[in-house]
Amino acid sequence: MCDTCGCGDTEIVPVDVRERILSHNDHQAAHNRQHFVAGGVLAINLMGSPGAGKTAMLEATARALPDAKLAAISGDLATDHDEARLSHAGITAATINTDSGCHLDAELVHRRLHDVPWRDASVLFIENVGNLVCPAVYDLGQAANVVALSVTEGVDKPEKYPVRFRAADLVLLTKIDLLPHLPGISVEAIAASLAKVNPQPRLLPVSAVSGEGIGAWTDWLASRR
Amino acid sequence: MCDTCGCGDTEIVPVDVRERILSHNDHQAAHNRQHFVAGGVLAINLMGSPGAGKTAMLEATARALPDAKLAAISGDLATDHDEARLSHAGITAATINTDSGCHLDAELVHRRLHDVPWRDASVLFIENVGNLVCPAVYDLGQAANVVALSVTEGVDKPEKYPVRFRAADLVLLTKIDLLPHLPGISVEAIAASLAKVNPQPRLLPVSAVSGEGIGAWTDWLASRR
Repeated sequence: MCDTCGCGDTEIVPVDVRERILSHNDHQAAHNRQHFVAGGVLAINLMGSPGAGKTAMLEATARALPDAKLAAISGDLATDHDEARLSHAGITAATINTDSGCHLDAELVHRRLHDVPWRDASVLFIENVGNLVCPAVYDLGQAANVVALSVTEGVDKPEKYPVRFRAADLVLLTKIDLLPHLPGISVEAIAASLAKVNPQPRLLPVSAVSGEGIGAWTDWLASRR
Repeated sequence: MCDTCGCGDTEIVPVDVRERILSHNDHQAAHNRQHFVAGGVLAINLMGSPGAGKTAMLEATARALPDAKLAAISGDLATDHDEARLSHAGITAATINTDSGCHLDAELVHRRLHDVPWRDASVLFIENVGNLVCPAVYDLGQAANVVALSVTEGVDKPEKYPVRFRAADLVLLTKIDLLPHLPGISVEAIAASLAKVNPQPRLLPVSAVSGEGIGAWTDWLASRR
């Protein structure tokens, strides 16, 4: 876990240990991916800061697709709050509590798959731990990386967290209903920051409150199936 | 760094390596603390999610204390945007870029101290990498842990990130000017969540935009000197 393995102290963690960890994860992620492809399920790794609106986006997705079978695995250090919200919204959901771990990994996801009837679903959302750093390099076997970025986080987060945004297949710019109350923040400025780190930036402004952009988001999901 | 050391894979990182890392950090942090105490400088470890308003709070602090000598070290994966903002606000500032590291550690801070005239300052703010998980257990030698939590992040973040909020000497509840536009979110609900994980919760509602609560914050700083 992040509080005990010593992220940031690469000079102390032996190189072979680090390589073994990532190699082990990649192997497990490839196994997960085989499962998802064989099962015909679109697996989405949904990442973002704490409070970026990841769960609210999934609730809005369920409202927009009332006939779709959606499943989710929610990663959090503690609580099953997101699982309860998603279940209430009609999404088959399960929790992974990481205790002090700052991201999900492929093995944690694989273990939890046994408890979720994900094969019945068209889309499996893997809602990662709220964090813009650690989840970036841990492949979970997903088909696509989606990052939720709230307009309240300011305009320069893509440049400040380039590892995360460089690998994003789609950035959901959330909470755009708040833009009138945020002087100095605009979709254009955030798009410009994203373009500096992502060679093929794909930014979708959305609001789970007003519903704006939700149709474009579900169209994107359909296009990836 | 977090992408290479494998946070979350405690079963793979040898126990002695993990203990060596934290022990090494604690030793360096004690050394930093001696420096700060001897220099008569109040060192604050300021943490929070990406976009929680950490830098905006420091800008507001500088506006509220125009005669104070303030210094800051800003941690970010990339860019020196925060250093530029803080310098513009009159704060002596320097950047630590962690590349892919998810938190500062005591040695990174110690190295950077050589480049900042922190002994001239009354307060040294160490603005950690935007992250609610990793910075929690790395002592930097600070006198106090302050967490910035934005009202836009929802009401249950303390319960979801208990390691971080349990060790907070003060939680700055930022962006309260946005509360009228956030149905379902209140200071009371966030305070209730904090009280569940912190035995002596101290929550200070503030707005860097309206200035509300900034006086109470500078009073708190004065009380800690």
